[in-house]
Order: sequence, then structure tokens, then C-alpha cells
Amino acid sequence: MAEAAHKQGDQEDAAVPDDPLIEALRGLLGDRLSTAKAVREHHGDDLSFHPMSAPDAVAFAKSTEEVSEIVKLCAAHNRPVVAFGAGTSLEGQVQAPSGGICIDLGGMDEILEVNQADLDCRVQAGVTRKTLNTHLRDTGLFFPIDPGADASLGGMAATSASGTNAVRYGTMRDNVMGLTVVLADGRIIRTGGRSRKSSSGYDLTRLFVGSEGTLGIITEVQLRLYGIPEAMTAAVCSFDSLAGAVDTVILTIQSGIPVARIELLDEHQVDAVNRYSKLELPLKPTLFFEFHGTEAWAKEQAELAGEIAEGFGGSNFEWAAKQEDRNKLWQARHDVWFANLALKPGAKGWATDVCVPISRLAECILETRKDIDETGVVAPIVGHVGDGNFHLTFLLDPGDAEGLAKAEAVNERMVMRALSMGGTCTGEHGVGSSKKKFLQAEHGEAVSVMRQLKIALDPQNLMNPGKILTI
Amino acid sequence: MAEAAHKQGDQEDAAVPDDPLIEALRGLLGDRLSTAKAVREHHGDDLSFHPMSAPDAVAFAKSTEEVSEIVKLCAAHNRPVVAFGAGTSLEGQVQAPSGGICIDLGGMDEILEVNQADLDCRVQAGVTRKTLNTHLRDTGLFFPIDPGADASLGGMAATSASGTNAVRYGTMRDNVMGLTVVLADGRIIRTGGRSRKSSSGYDLTRLFVGSEGTLGIITEVQLRLYGIPEAMTAAVCSFDSLAGAVDTVILTIQSGIPVARIELLDEHQVDAVNRYSKLELPLKPTLFFEFHGTEAWAKEQAELAGEIAEGFGGSNFEWAAKQEDRNKLWQARHDVWFANLALKPGAKGWATDVCVPISRLAECILETRKDIDETGVVAPIVGHVGDGNFHLTFLLDPGDAEGLAKAEAVNERMVMRALSMGGTCTGEHGVGSSKKKFLQAEHGEAVSVMRQLKIALDPQNLMNPGKILTI
Repeated sequence: MAEAAHKQGDQEDAAVPDDPLIEALRGLLGDRLSTAKAVREHHGDDLSFHPMSAPDAVAFAKSTEEVSEIVKLCAAHNRPVVAFGAGTSLEGQVQAPSGGICIDLGGMDEILEVNQADLDCRVQAGVTRKTLNTHLRDTGLFFPIDPGADASLGGMAATSASGTNAVRYGTMRDNVMGLTVVLADGRIIRTGGRSRKSSSGYDLTRLFVGSEGTLGIITEVQLRLYGIPEAMTAAVCSFDSLAGAVDTVILTIQSGIPVARIELLDEHQVDAVNRYSKLELPLKPTLFFEFHGTEAWAKEQAELAGEIAEGFGGSNFEWAAKQEDRNKLWQARHDVWFANLALKPGAKGWATDVCVPISRLAECILETRKDIDETGVVAPIVGHVGDGNFHLTFLLDPGDAEGLAKAEAVNERMVMRALSMGGTCTGEHGVGSSKKKFLQAEHGEAVSVMRQLKIALDPQNLMNPGKILTI
Repeated sequence: MAEAAHKQGDQEDAAVPDDPLIEALRGLLGDRLSTAKAVREHHGDDLSFHPMSAPDAVAFAKSTEEVSEIVKLCAAHNRPVVAFGAGTSLEGQVQAPSGGICIDLGGMDEILEVNQADLDCRVQAGVTRKTLNTHLRDTGLFFPIDPGADASLGGMAATSASGTNAVRYGTMRDNVMGLTVVLADGRIIRTGGRSRKSSSGYDLTRLFVGSEGTLGIITEVQLRLYGIPEAMTAAVCSFDSLAGAVDTVILTIQSGIPVARIELLDEHQVDAVNRYSKLELPLKPTLFFEFHGTEAWAKEQAELAGEIAEGFGGSNFEWAAKQEDRNKLWQARHDVWFANLALKPGAKGWATDVCVPISRLAECILETRKDIDETGVVAPIVGHVGDGNFHLTFLLDPGDAEGLAKAEAVNERMVMRALSMGGTCTGEHGVGSSKKKFLQAEHGEAVSVMRQLKIALDPQNLMNPGKILTI
């Protein structure tokens, strides 16, 4: 049935009179159900290199109750359900290889409450992080998690996103206080709550954070907020060796300096950034720092980190306390994706990430860099090194099967290298469809428990099937 | 069967020739299996007010593999399994109301690895927090979670413990990186890992943290460590009103001052502490602070907090940068339990806790205090107020059924009050057997999901049955 419907879905906006699920959904949603080819194809694709795979129809939901009704109908017709936020995921999380119904949560964009005194808020899943921060502007608060893209907060929760300042503020796992979730049978639950800690029952919140829509659909998110620091200072420092840069990171973290961001760019990445963002950084392994605090404390942090960097051969430790200079530096970091694409015009980017204990980071990056060079692919390295997390962006010509095969081999070797060092196959992009094959190597017997949980909560295997686990 | 064995277990060190499970376990463990009455009774009791309930036998395990064998035998004989660490839990987590086998993990006391560069370590479940910190002394690192008692780290993970400095360093949920767990069918899994973040698959670690032995038995814990701060400063400040103290807490947290501890003692608690610890604090609502950082930063934090306190009517804001003075202050805080017991000689203490959004804390504490006074029970209040978490210690004469009934009513009203304010029925003590009745009121439909997970992982309901959930 799912396959038949999927094939049928490839036709442009057919009336599909023989698809009772589509008819039922249209009865529920009216013109907020679309079977138009362009709409379906847009919703079957993310920012990744993974091929588009369109759902049979796209349902534009407006409320948790509506999501519940849609899911119940899908369950009754035994058809898959895939949630869609802003479409910015990186491992094929929104693709619909088995067809089914995509639920677009972008219209659920209400900020439901902001509790200033308690530093928390509750938003509908479709609110993006930039929208939230714009809304918070006059409160003196902000939400720090910044994966780069203007992702939806529901999507960020579902993929356990993080980004540049996770080293200081944690990841989505640490900052989601509670969720509203629609389960595979349409039940609506609220997990967690507004108190800052709880030992009351199983931690369902963290079970759903990072579950990529395979256990349920997140429709609301309760988030921690933070006071905007009085002062922010940025710094940039280049090193003769990658090891010197990484040792600087290790000692900075060990010393308890609560660095807000600490990003590593290898010399290839610096080259791309210089070209794209009109900077003149030395072509060397480089660290970007940011420090948050009071004026005095942010300054002291920068001084302490500068001393540590100097001890490991860092030169040109330059501060930028002025917002304008900071913005230029961090805009350049944020534009890495575009800088990389500009390195090889016409190429498509494929971003992949791993995370290792920091003590193994230099070794892991150096071996990966050697492998990239020997294999003959283009792939700058950039990393959230305070967490031991780094990214490769492969630049691939469309249709270059050989190049793709080489990149896949480099990626596989990098993942196995990270695992052998006690690391993980993905620090922040998630598993999606493409990292499933590494789960057993990373988690061993624990995968059987993940599978038990999936089967318990989604016995029909309709929630984003084919992602994270092979059932 | 379980009931019959339980009755039999009440006899002193019987040969139990007709209990095939006991025989099989003795074959496995030799004299590391005990059916002695004193041993069983010791293992059927914790620090709580809940009545002792002895298991049928106590198995002293030495390895994860041995725990697995014990659990398999229990499953084969359909008999309950209760894990025991240091016996310091507070909500009846180790009691064995259905009998069965208690697995004492105290002998699993090896510190398996300390990774200084990565600020992490792995320990067997029986290692206590003080033993770990003694072991770490020469590394410049420490493990910050401090629930008061010298609890085992496996037990702290199982109950999602926290304590005074959770406001700065988080709870066990935030500091457990991975676990080794023996499941109900004897499978051994490793969850999480050594990288500082991961988006790889379901977060099983946090599912087991706080599950109180009902989903599996934690045998090893991977923990985050922290560099010992260069400087620590303590301060104490009294207020004319509880509201002034709580408003000081709110603004301190909002201002992003990373206070390491911020503890509230109401005037009754101050009285008890003055008597027991020979202090002369004014009999007013009082805050104890601690600040960690560099010399300059710890000093600046204390100054900032002092200014905030002054703005809310705080007086006598006194610092204690000297370790001796700090120790005296925090020893007094740690001795609150004994100070309370000394208030009413011969009484037993019953500690209970709730947690609310900080903005509701003053209201929740004041209403609770009023209820205590009107009901006519003795119960000082102390709280980890940076988290919105506070504790009552009821002082009850053994055998005073009326006093106990009054205390139970105050507790129930306090929990319902906390829930109505968006809080939780327990911030850090856990659910055990006595807070089960509040789970539905707090979590609603989500309890059905907890139950599904329990049934999926423990279909025979043998893992610490009767705790957290009613199956």
C-alpha cells in the first residue's frame, strides 16, 4: 500500500480519488493538504547530500490536536508519517523513502509563553531559533543554541542539535526542559516541566530529544533561556601545528575557563574563509574564541586563554571586544558552508561530523586530513573543538560517482577512527538514514534496547521509518 | 512464589533447602550470598522514614558479569531483584516489599579509569562520591555532585541525585556520560560514551538515570569531572523576609552569576543549625552562597551577589574566603539532618522534597510554612533554592500515628501545591514507593508511556517492583 501510494504520489497534484487516506486528510485539513509535486519534493529534501525522496502528500498542521488527528488517520491506513520543520537537517532526516504523509510544522509558529523570572519559554515546534531570539530581544534573555541554520526549535530538539556555543551552554539535550509529543497512536503527552530539575519518573524528554521523529512528533518545546551577558569578547589565534591548537583547547577547558565558543579551522578551511569573507588570516590551523561574562571577567578569560595559547605556540592572539569586529569574525565562521561551496564552483556540499574525547582530537583530525589528501577529495575541516566535535565538508561534482565513492570511504574510515578512539559517529548532525550502518559498531547490544523501545512505542513502524534504526 | 519466599526469608539464616533460587545463587556466589536476618534487614532499609522490608537474600556481587548471572537466575525463578549501593536513598528505593534478591554492589568499588585530559572517569557502581574525590585529589580534578550522604555513584545515577551545587554543575542527569547496565533478561549493555556530546541514537543513558533500578541495574558509571577552581568564596546573608531572600536568588541567577551553591534556611532551620553547630546566625531567613572561579572572578561574583542581596533587604552579607570559615559554614549546612534530629530528641526524621519554578518559590515555601504551623508539626525548611528545590524534614516520634498522618497530609498538600505551580513532586529524592501516587497528577498521559517502556524492558516486572510505577 505504501509503495503504491508512493508511486502514485509522483504524479503532479493528481486527484488521487483512490487514496482513502488522502481523502480523509483533505476532509480534515482542506487546502492545508497538498499533493503538488513541487511541494512534495521540497518536503522530501533537506540541506544534505542525500537524494530527495518525496512523501505522498504534505499536511500543514496548525495545532497539536490536528497533528494527533493526522497521525491517527495514518495509523488507521498503515502509512508512514514524517515531521518537517525548516528542512535544514543534514543526514536525510526528512526524506520519505517509504512515502507516507509529511507533516509540516512550520505553521505552528507561536511563542506560547516567556517566563522571564524563571528563564524559560514554551514555543510551538515550528518557531525558528532566530524568531525566538528576535522575540526575546527586549527581555534581556536569549536562547544560545546555534547550529548555523535558522532551524525550527522542534527540529533542533528532534535531532539533538547543538553548534558553536554548546561548549558553554550545552546542546538541545541540556536545554530542552519539556516537550509536547504526539505518539504513533495519536496520544498526546507532555514530558518534563518547568522546574529546573526533577527526579520524578523516567526522563521521557531526553528520550524524545534526538529521536528524529521515530518515536513521536514533537509539537511544543519548553526551553531554558539565559541572560544576555554584560560583555562578549572574541579572539582569534593561529598555530604552527594542529596539535598546538588542540592542546590549547584541552588546557582551556581543563582550567575551567567557561569559553562560550572555541572553533578550530584547519588551514584549508582558513583559505576558504579568507577568500569568501575577505579576511587575511595566516594560512595555519586557527582558533576562534568567544568569552561571555562581566566586563572584567570576559577580559580575564581572554587573557588566560591568550596565555595558554602562547604556551602552545599560538601567535597573533587578537581580541575583538568591539561588536563590529566580533560580528565579522563570527559571520565568517557561520559562512563556512558557503565559503566551502565557493572553493569548487558547481559542487554540492556534503557535511558529516564525528566527536571524540578531546585528548584524541588532534590525532583524529590529523589522520583524517591525511586520508583526505591521500584519497584526493576536497574537504575542509572545521570543528566545535571544545566538545571534541569536528566536521568535514566534502565538495562533490554532481554525477561524479567516483568522487562520491571516495568521499563515502573517507567518511566511513573517519567514523571508524572516531569510534576506535572512544568517540561517536555523530556529535550533532544525527543518524538519519546514512549513519544507521554505524550504530551497531558504536553501541553494540544497546541497539537491541533502542529497537525494543521503538517497537514498544511504534509497533507499526510508521514514525519516520528507515531512520536511526533498521527494524 | 515471591510471597512464600519472602515469609521464609523472615527466619534467621535458615538453610532454605526448598528454595531452588537460593541454592542456585549459593552455587554461584558461595559465602557471598547471605540469608542472615540482620544482613537482610540492613539491606531492606534506607535513610528514609519508610518501614524496613527485607529481601529473601542478599547477593554481594563482584562484577557486571556476576550481576548478569544473578539477574538471569532471578528471571528464571520469577523473583524480584533490588539493587543496593550505600543504602542512603530517601524514598524507600531499596526496600523489598515483594521479597526477592537484593544485589549489594558495594563490593564493586574499583575506579576503572581516570582520563585527566578529557575530564572524565569510569567507576564501578559501588564507588562512593567521597572515595572518588579522595582518589582524584592529586589530579586537580573533582566530581561536584554532593547529595550530602556519601552515596554510591551507581545509586546516585539510579536516583538522579543532585544536592547543593547542582545550580552550578547540574545533576547526575547532566554529569553521567554513560552507563553499563544489566537488563532484566541478563543482557549487558553500554550506553553513551566518552565524547562530550552525541546525536547517535536514543539517549539510553538518561533513560536509566533516575529509573531507580526498575529498568535495569547500573554496574558502571562514566562521569564528567571538573578542574578544582583556583578560588572558592563563601558568603552568608540574612533577610527580614523570605521573599527578599528568594528575590535575591532569582536576580542572581538571571544575572548569570554562576553561583556554585545558594542555599536557603528558614528561621526554624537557622535555629536548629545555631544550636547544633554552635553558630550565632540571626534568626531570620538566611542564604548561604559559594562562588568558584579565579581569585578575581570569585571575588567579583561575591560582590555582585552582595549588591543584589542588599537591594532586597539582605543584611550582614559576610564573606568567608578562608577555607576554615567556609568549611565551618558548609559543615553546618551538611549537618542540617542531625541538627534537625537534635531539635526533638528521640524523634525520627522524614525528609521530603519538591521543586518549583523559581518565581513561585517564595509563595510555595510561605504557604507550606503556614500549613506546617497550622497543622502543628515540626518541620524546618532548607532548600537548594538556585534550582527552586526545597526540603522539609518532619520530626516524628516513633509510634505517633496522629503526627505521621498530619505530616503525610502536609506532604501531600505541599506536592499538590508544587504541581499547581508548574513544579515536580520531587526535585532530587526520587519517587521510590511513596511518591508513586503523585505521578499521574504530575505527568498525566505520559505515565502510560513510562509504563510501556517498563513493560518493554521488564515484562516480568522483576526489577525493583513497586517502585516509581504501579504496573
